Amino acid sequence: MYEKNIPYKIYLQEDELPKAWYNLRADMKNKPAPLLNPGTHQPMKAEELMPVFCEELVKQELDDTTPYIPIPEEVLNFYKMYRPAPLVRAYCLEEKLQTPAKIYYKFEGNNTSGSHKLNSAIAQAYYAKKQGLKGVTTETGAGQWGTALSMACSYFGLDCKVFMVKVSYEQKPFRREVMRTYGADVTPSPSNTTQVGRKILQEHPGTSGSLGCAISEAVEAATTREGYRYVLGSVLSQVVLHQSIIGLETKTAMDKYGIKPDIIIGCAGGGSNLGGLIAPFMGEKLRGEADYRFIAVEPASCPSLTRGKYVYDFCDTGMVCPLAKMYTLGSGFIPSANHAGGLRYHGMSSILSQLYDDKLMEATSVEQTEVFKAAEDFARVEGILPAPESSHAIYVAMQEALRCKETGEEKTILFGLTGTGYFDLTAYQRFNDGEMTDYVPADEDLKKGFAGIPQFPGNEFQF
Amino acid sequence: MYEKNIPYKIYLQEDELPKAWYNLRADMKNKPAPLLNPGTHQPMKAEELMPVFCEELVKQELDDTTPYIPIPEEVLNFYKMYRPAPLVRAYCLEEKLQTPAKIYYKFEGNNTSGSHKLNSAIAQAYYAKKQGLKGVTTETGAGQWGTALSMACSYFGLDCKVFMVKVSYEQKPFRREVMRTYGADVTPSPSNTTQVGRKILQEHPGTSGSLGCAISEAVEAATTREGYRYVLGSVLSQVVLHQSIIGLETKTAMDKYGIKPDIIIGCAGGGSNLGGLIAPFMGEKLRGEADYRFIAVEPASCPSLTRGKYVYDFCDTGMVCPLAKMYTLGSGFIPSANHAGGLRYHGMSSILSQLYDDKLMEATSVEQTEVFKAAEDFARVEGILPAPESSHAIYVAMQEALRCKETGEEKTILFGLTGTGYFDLTAYQRFNDGEMTDYVPADEDLKKGFAGIPQFPGNEFQF
Repeated sequence: MYEKNIPYKIYLQEDELPKAWYNLRADMKNKPAPLLNPGTHQPMKAEELMPVFCEELVKQELDDTTPYIPIPEEVLNFYKMYRPAPLVRAYCLEEKLQTPAKIYYKFEGNNTSGSHKLNSAIAQAYYAKKQGLKGVTTETGAGQWGTALSMACSYFGLDCKVFMVKVSYEQKPFRREVMRTYGADVTPSPSNTTQVGRKILQEHPGTSGSLGCAISEAVEAATTREGYRYVLGSVLSQVVLHQSIIGLETKTAMDKYGIKPDIIIGCAGGGSNLGGLIAPFMGEKLRGEADYRFIAVEPASCPSLTRGKYVYDFCDTGMVCPLAKMYTLGSGFIPSANHAGGLRYHGMSSILSQLYDDKLMEATSVEQTEVFKAAEDFARVEGILPAPESSHAIYVAMQEALRCKETGEEKTILFGLTGTGYFDLTAYQRFNDGEMTDYVPADEDLKKGFAGIPQFPGNEFQF
Repeated sequence: MYEKNIPYKIYLQEDELPKAWYNLRADMKNKPAPLLNPGTHQPMKAEELMPVFCEELVKQELDDTTPYIPIPEEVLNFYKMYRPAPLVRAYCLEEKLQTPAKIYYKFEGNNTSGSHKLNSAIAQAYYAKKQGLKGVTTETGAGQWGTALSMACSYFGLDCKVFMVKVSYEQKPFRREVMRTYGADVTPSPSNTTQVGRKILQEHPGTSGSLGCAISEAVEAATTREGYRYVLGSVLSQVVLHQSIIGLETKTAMDKYGIKPDIIIGCAGGGSNLGGLIAPFMGEKLRGEADYRFIAVEPASCPSLTRGKYVYDFCDTGMVCPLAKMYTLGSGFIPSANHAGGLRYHGMSSILSQLYDDKLMEATSVEQTEVFKAAEDFARVEGILPAPESSHAIYVAMQEALRCKETGEEKTILFGLTGTGYFDLTAYQRFNDGEMTDYVPADEDLKKGFAGIPQFPGNEFQF
C-alpha cells in the first residue's frame, strides 16, 4: 500500500555514495578457508597468485581482517556514471499480490552491461591499469561479465581479451557485438590461439566449448603474455568485496527512510551479487547488532548449496586454478541447459559457503518454469524485464509475500534485481511458446560430479 | 571540467515530477495547420476522428489553446516507475573531446521499452481504458513503439494488437518476444487477418511489408472491431504533448541547478521526442522570455525538414489517415535501409514543421557512418550504448562541442538521448565489420516521392 513518505524509487544523492567497500570477512568469526595450491595442498601465498592476478587484487583476496577498503577515486567517478542504483518500492507488485508485505528491490540493471558485474569489473580494470599492465584476459559464458569488463577496460584504455564459450559466441551475437563495440577482442573458445585450446580442439573436434575450457585459455593467455593478468567476475572474495557497494547503498537508502528489512533474498550462482547485497546486513548480524533472514536462491538444476558438498574443490573445469573450500557439485558436474546461464556454476563463493555452513543464511532451489512465470508477472506490473538469474529471487520474494498474505504479517522483504533480460529473449520465447522444461538432477547425476572432487588428507568426504 | 555543485546525474525527487503536460501550441502565434479530411479537404472535426481515435485524445489533438493539461493520477503513478529520467552531465565526454563546452543529455532509455515512447503509450492506454474500450491497435516498425504500447496496455489490462512490419517481425525476434511477454498479440504485416492485408498479399505475394501497410491494417482492425481504437506513437500533436514531460523535467532540473542551455539538440523522425524535449524552452522563446538555438537532426537518407516540401500530405503510405501539413518527402518516398528505423519517416510533426518554417528552429542532416562512429565514442566514455536514432543527436552535439574547442566558448549544450541500442546490434555489427554504407537520395529520387503528394486548391507546389 502506498506510503506517502516512501517514493517509488529511492535514489541516493551522489555525495551519499559509499566511499569504501565493506569486507564482510573481517566480521566473520569462522573465516572462509584459504585457497590451496592444487599441487601441495598448502595455502596459496601472495607471490604464487601474483603471476596470474593483479597485485592489489591478490592483497584484497587474502585480506580477511580489514573491515573497510577505500574505493579509489577513479573507480568512484566511474560508479557515478551509473550509480547510485535505485532502491525500488514494488508498490505495483504488492498490489497485484494483494499482500500486506512491503517489497523492495535493489535494481542493478541500469547500465549497458545490464547487470551488477560492472561494479567489480571497473575495480579490477583500475588495479590492472594502476599496476601498469597492458591488458587483462577473461572468459565469459552468457556474456554479462565479458561485457562489463569490456566497458571497464575501454574506460581505462586497457586491452581486453575475452574467451567466449563457442556456443554462446554463435548463439549470442548481440552480446559479442556489445563487447566489440567497447573495443574488446572476443575469441570463441576453444580456439587455436592457445596451447590448451589447440589440444582440446584436437581431442574434441567440433566441440562447442565450456566455461572451464575458456578459463584455461584465458589463464594461459594472461600468463604467457608480457603485461597481462587474468581477471574473474565471481566466486572470488575480492569480487564479493567490490559488490558490497550494492548492499552498502541499499542500507544507506533504507536507513535514510527508516526501513528495516525482515528478509533479504538474492539469486546465487558464484555468489557475488548475493554476497554484495547482504554484506552490511550480515555484518550487523555477525556483530549481534540486528537480525535478518537471508535466503540464497539457486536453480534446482544446479543446486550447489542445497545438495552440494562443503569441501575443497577446483574452481574451474580445467583444474588450473587454486582449490577453494566451498559448497560444490564437483568441477566436472555438467548443469543442464538452464536459461539462467549466470547460475550454472558448480561451486559457490567461499564466504557464502562458510556463512551457510554456519547456519547464518538459508538456501532454497527453484525450477525455471515457475521462475519465468514470476518474471513475466513482475515485468507486467513493475515494467522491468528481469534477467532469468534475477528472476529466481523475484520468485522467492513473491512466495514470501504470499505467505504474508496468508498470515497477515506486514513483513519487509528486500531482494536483489541483478539485471535485465534484454539478451535472454530466446529463453523468454521458449517460455512464451510453452516449450520450457524443468530438470532436477537425480542423485546418480550428482554422484558423477562428486567423483571429480579431489580427496586428500583433510578433504575426505562421503558420497 | 568537473563542477563541484553539479553531479554526474541529476535525478529530480518524485514530488518534483511535472503534474501537467505543456501544450506548446498554446504559445505559438502561427498555429500548426489543422488536419484535413482527405476526401473533402476540410478541417477534420472531432466527430470524424472519434471512430478511429479515443475521445480524450481527439480533444487533445485539436486543442491548440490550453497551455497546461493535467496528467491523470494513474499516468503519473506509472511515470513514477521509470521517471524522473536522469539529466546527465557528460563529464567524461567533455574530457574526451577536451572541450570547454558543458554537455548535458536527458536519458530516456532507462525503461524496458528502451526509449521515450512509453511516455505517450501510457497516456494513450489510460484514455482508452477510461473510455471503457477493450483494446487498441497499432503498427510498429523497428518495435520501440509496439513494445512501449504493450507495456502500457498490460498495465491497464487492455488488449493490444500490434501489426509489425513483416521484415522486422522476422529480423527482430527479440522485440517481438518482449511484446509477447507483455501479453500483446503481434501479427506480421501484411497479414490475412484484414481485408487490406489480404489485398496486398494477393497483389504482392511474398512482400516483406511496410509501415504504411501496417498502419492501414491497424486502422482497419480498430474500426471493424467493437470496443477498439487505433493509436499512434509519433507525428500527432497529442504525442508531442505527452512527450513534453521530457522537456519539463529537464527544465526543472536545469533551473534547480542554475543551468541555462545555449543549444538544444534532438534527433527528428516523426518529431515526438524533439518536440517534447524543446517544448518548455521553445515556449520561453515564443513568449520572448529567453532565447535558445534549437537543432533538429535527421538522417541524410530521409531528409524531411532539410529537403522536403512544406505542404499537406498523407501521414501514411496507405493514404487512409487525415492529411497533415508538414515538411514531407511524399508518402510514397521509400527511405533507404538506414539503421535508425525510428527516423525513416517521410513527414514530420505539424508543430515542428511550423516552428521550422517560422525559422524558430534549425535542421541539419547527417550520414549514418559518422553517426555510428560518434555512438561508439560516446558508449566508450559515457557507458551507455545509444540507439542509432539518438546517436544522430550525439554526433551533432559533439560537433558543436568541438566548435567550442576551436573558439574557446564555454557553451552549454543539451541533447536528447532518446534510447538504448540493445536491439540494434545488427547495425553495430555492420559498423564494427566496416560494412556500413551511406546513402543520400539524388534529387531525382526525391522527385518520385514528391509526385505522390496530393495537389489541390491551396496545396499547389513546385517540384
